[in-house]
Amino acid sequence: MKNMVYIQSGGPTSVINTSLYGAIKEAKLHRDEIDHIYGSLNGIEGMIDDKLIDIDQEDDEQIELLLQTPGSILGTTRRKLPKDVHDPVYMKIVDTLKRRGIKYVFVNGGNDSMDTCNKLSNLCQELGLDVRVMGVPKTIDNDLACTDHSLGFPSAAKFVINTINALSMDACCFKVGKIHVVEIMGRNAGWLTACADILPEATRPHLIYIPENKFDLEKFLVEVKEVYDRFGYGMVCISEGIEFERSNKSSRVDGFGHAQLGGAAAGLCDIIEKRLGLPTRAVEFSLTQRACPFAISRVDREEAIETGRRAVKAALAGETGKMIIFKRVSQSPYKIEYQLADVSLVANAESVIKPSMMVDNTRMSQEFKDYIAPLIEGEVELKTKGGIVLMANWKKVLVK
Amino acid sequence: MKNMVYIQSGGPTSVINTSLYGAIKEAKLHRDEIDHIYGSLNGIEGMIDDKLIDIDQEDDEQIELLLQTPGSILGTTRRKLPKDVHDPVYMKIVDTLKRRGIKYVFVNGGNDSMDTCNKLSNLCQELGLDVRVMGVPKTIDNDLACTDHSLGFPSAAKFVINTINALSMDACCFKVGKIHVVEIMGRNAGWLTACADILPEATRPHLIYIPENKFDLEKFLVEVKEVYDRFGYGMVCISEGIEFERSNKSSRVDGFGHAQLGGAAAGLCDIIEKRLGLPTRAVEFSLTQRACPFAISRVDREEAIETGRRAVKAALAGETGKMIIFKRVSQSPYKIEYQLADVSLVANAESVIKPSMMVDNTRMSQEFKDYIAPLIEGEVELKTKGGIVLMANWKKVLVK
Repeated sequence: MKNMVYIQSGGPTSVINTSLYGAIKEAKLHRDEIDHIYGSLNGIEGMIDDKLIDIDQEDDEQIELLLQTPGSILGTTRRKLPKDVHDPVYMKIVDTLKRRGIKYVFVNGGNDSMDTCNKLSNLCQELGLDVRVMGVPKTIDNDLACTDHSLGFPSAAKFVINTINALSMDACCFKVGKIHVVEIMGRNAGWLTACADILPEATRPHLIYIPENKFDLEKFLVEVKEVYDRFGYGMVCISEGIEFERSNKSSRVDGFGHAQLGGAAAGLCDIIEKRLGLPTRAVEFSLTQRACPFAISRVDREEAIETGRRAVKAALAGETGKMIIFKRVSQSPYKIEYQLADVSLVANAESVIKPSMMVDNTRMSQEFKDYIAPLIEGEVELKTKGGIVLMANWKKVLVK
Repeated sequence: MKNMVYIQSGGPTSVINTSLYGAIKEAKLHRDEIDHIYGSLNGIEGMIDDKLIDIDQEDDEQIELLLQTPGSILGTTRRKLPKDVHDPVYMKIVDTLKRRGIKYVFVNGGNDSMDTCNKLSNLCQELGLDVRVMGVPKTIDNDLACTDHSLGFPSAAKFVINTINALSMDACCFKVGKIHVVEIMGRNAGWLTACADILPEATRPHLIYIPENKFDLEKFLVEVKEVYDRFGYGMVCISEGIEFERSNKSSRVDGFGHAQLGGAAAGLCDIIEKRLGLPTRAVEFSLTQRACPFAISRVDREEAIETGRRAVKAALAGETGKMIIFKRVSQSPYKIEYQLADVSLVANAESVIKPSMMVDNTRMSQEFKDYIAPLIEGEVELKTKGGIVLMANWKKVLVK
């Protein structure tokens, strides 16, 4: 038996299931080399607990709906594997690999997940197992190293840009305006927050604060006041990762050991009201920015499908311990080349915004705008019923 | 001179400018009866301060973009007119009416704005002015009396339904799930929150709490725990208007004297964590639910255009002190009749969900689902450039 297993890991994106779609489509073209297509239930957990979903039992129609279904259809986890590859958990994974005749493993995730991918690949080689482990890049944070951008980021960026565009029209129309502080995801990288700066003058944020720049609360208050005095309202975008003293900072951490973020906008609004006496509104895009199917970028969808396909092809060609990366070879017309990078180079590294992409601490440069613009191009058609976007509803039959 | 002025009032919706579009289109067909088309800057404030926008100076293309532009293009206000019609502010409005030769006034707003509409109509009649005042219904809260539903509600409902649909796919996919508490607008009416209950089993909220039912915190905690024990996560929708003891309740009020809501989800998440020890995520849809152009319902758009047109026609036919209302005459196929109601009947009244539309305190009945379903039907095409929805960018030339 030569089977494949697909693992979705970490936080979902609106195209995470689209890469899976591409991988399934490609795998089905190679039935001579791949007997069964499995999915690991809840990320690496399914490999540890031997809980595999038999993807071959899902109908074609349900496979097609992956293209517009957010969340991780196979389930996900934030569990990080232990550093020590002699930890018993690894032997459980190896048991599953052997028991299920798995030759091809695909790990779809962000930098932490590429760490999982790296460890798994090394272990299989050490043990002399004929198992190939391929990484499929994914994160709305766009902080994956070695690649021009990550799958999921373009659609999240498109959501952020279009939603700020709309909120600006709402924010500016009141006689007595407010300072709107909008909190956007991205952890230590400001990509998703900064992208709103590509909007036209009339609707782009007045101020943008990203973690790449040290956050100075006093400077922030001066800049906010200037904006309010000038426009009578304000649209301020902040990245969840900026650091300041919060009264209500959450002390919870996720499975990867990262603090659960959020609450920065509310915290800054409190400070603005107390210190400047200005009316405020805190807005957190929260899960909507990574789940909204309305903002899927056509570029993101096409690249996600192609990446899933290429990961399968690379594994069949004998590659292991590699992640598919994008190299931008032309800006206009936008064109990327798909390449492979060692997951060890990607694992636990972080890509953040370069200084040349900023004009100052609150504005982005033309280089940044040129980088973002092609990624959000093009709309996709969504299958709906009665005005509701159809979602995949899988049987998820476990392999006995 | 026989001029018209259009007033946008209160909180915007994603189709508030669409009614204006309909009114402009109709007015332009009656150039023999309407000389100039004006808009009042910032709601009733423009009438008080004699600040009128000359809409005839806007290009056709900019008029067309109203169909997909959220916010109030003319500006809005939450100012409530004084009870006493002898207050000097009314004479300022009358001065503007006379100075600008205005014969037709259109007030587009919710129940508070219909109060403005009512006072203005009465005053004009008392003073023997040949001025006709017409109301155009608008509110995402759907709490306007006398009408089947309000413009803006269907699109906001479509946003809420589709976003909960997507968030449910995200929420359910983690090995260790959270209780998601999603806060939805609606003031004292639960329409917008409850509509998520029409989703299919797989993605509809587990629990819905609306202000029509007394909120019992202890019962809520029992119900939340049951859901978590059963599913390993939870999707809970709450209306911003439900009442419970909040540590961080805002004491701010808007111009209409209403408390500024928000923060209920965060407050309940705090309580769930402390009392039940369960992980949570608070999500507030905030302004996005009333501004998102991606979720505009075709029904809402068509009705908004037609309502704007009919308001103009009714005023030309001599009506005053009336609001356009919708009467649903057929459920399948969905069909409404446009009628007129006295604004005095609409002003300051509130329409909330009837007991027959609920199964119990957390679920809605078939009657409710049948009511909502046709409103969210149909998609609209949006004009975009480079992946960004185009927004109207008016010159807003003030009348000299």
